[in-house]
Amino acid sequence: MQIDFTISTSGQGLYEFTRDVTRWVHGNRDNGVLTLFVRHTSCSLLIQENADPEVQSDLRNFFHRLVPPTTDPTMSFLTHTYEGPDDMPAHIKAAMMPVSLAIPVTDGRLALGTWQGIYLFEHRNAPHSRHVVAHLSR
Amino acid sequence: MQIDFTISTSGQGLYEFTRDVTRWVHGNRDNGVLTLFVRHTSCSLLIQENADPEVQSDLRNFFHRLVPPTTDPTMSFLTHTYEGPDDMPAHIKAAMMPVSLAIPVTDGRLALGTWQGIYLFEHRNAPHSRHVVAHLSR
Amino acid sequence: MQIDFTISTSGQGLYEFTRDVTRWVHGNRDNGVLTLFVRHTSCSLLIQENADPEVQSDLRNFFHRLVPPTTDPTMSFLTHTYEGPDDMPAHIKAAMMPVSLAIPVTDGRLALGTWQGIYLFEHRNAPHSRHVVAHLSR
Repeated sequence: MQIDFTISTSGQGLYEFTRDVTRWVHGNRDNGVLTLFVRHTSCSLLIQENADPEVQSDLRNFFHRLVPPTTDPTMSFLTHTYEGPDDMPAHIKAAMMPVSLAIPVTDGRLALGTWQGIYLFEHRNAPHSRHVVAHLSR
Repeated sequence: MQIDFTISTSGQGLYEFTRDVTRWVHGNRDNGVLTLFVRHTSCSLLIQENADPEVQSDLRNFFHRLVPPTTDPTMSFLTHTYEGPDDMPAHIKAAMMPVSLAIPVTDGRLALGTWQGIYLFEHRNAPHSRHVVAHLSR
Repeated sequence: MQIDFTISTSGQGLYEFTRDVTRWVHGNRDNGVLTLFVRHTSCSLLIQENADPEVQSDLRNFFHRLVPPTTDPTMSFLTHTYEGPDDMPAHIKAAMMPVSLAIPVTDGRLALGTWQGIYLFEHRNAPHSRHVVAHLSR
């Protein structure tokens, strides 16, 4: 059982799509595992706190400081710069955060904790249309 | 086939639970995949070296320096601070390290390498009771 | 359905093995999930851009600066040093990047995006023979 989710992004940050996923998984009454896979190398998948939105902006800001744009003097050693100053940092962040997630399903419900939401973390500045493949297996 | 593991923690660091997992998987003679998923956003799952305990304290210390408490002047840009100086750094570390792991099972045995152990990496200072869902599929 | 891939490495950097994986998966006409798991604690698995080789050297160089050898004064707090100055940094990088990947298979084809390749990221300087377990499930 597979589906594709499309997530429209407009700049760096976290975009929640927990509801789309739970709606799709709901109804299957078995145990199993949901696999999520993002088909890009400049964004990530994250499970993160869904309560305080400041967590999301803090995450974006921390990783922007840890991996600044290639216009920053500390990043002058990078060579892959022709796709823009946010491109190579996006690949680096995509290496540090998940491209795939595996979430158990118990009696047809995702085993997410109370405060866990599912996010796409966009690392590019320009708007993008991101594709996530979901596979539900027993 | 699913089970919940509970891991009691008392401060930041790595807590091994390889033996609990292998004991549960043992006896199933088929090939398959074990999925582990931690139901929290301020701790992580890690596969790491199980030989020298200094590896574990070095890991804790490195990530404590890379992502210091919000009382550190370099972290003053963070805004989600009301749950304590170790809370937002815990979310950041939880973004950098796995929330889920997938480990193949071969003839009823986890395909871990000789030096690989399974750990919960606690990122909070206060004692916590952490829940890990395990799912074994063929 | 399981197989072991062996990847020979000669120093830090990314080694692509997408073709070995697709050749093995090809022919199975069903939907499913491919799990990859590396049986070591000093290298990682990565999905990254397969177009410009500069992305790969930039990734190696960034992580070498973020986690320098233990001979670097900033890393003098590390204690696990007897296996060489590249050993503990290798464990740290192995904590920051995936040990396992889950990639959906659609009609017998890996759901990789156009620019996604599968890499082993070697974190040690000396040549190594690295083992990756692949499991294909429905």
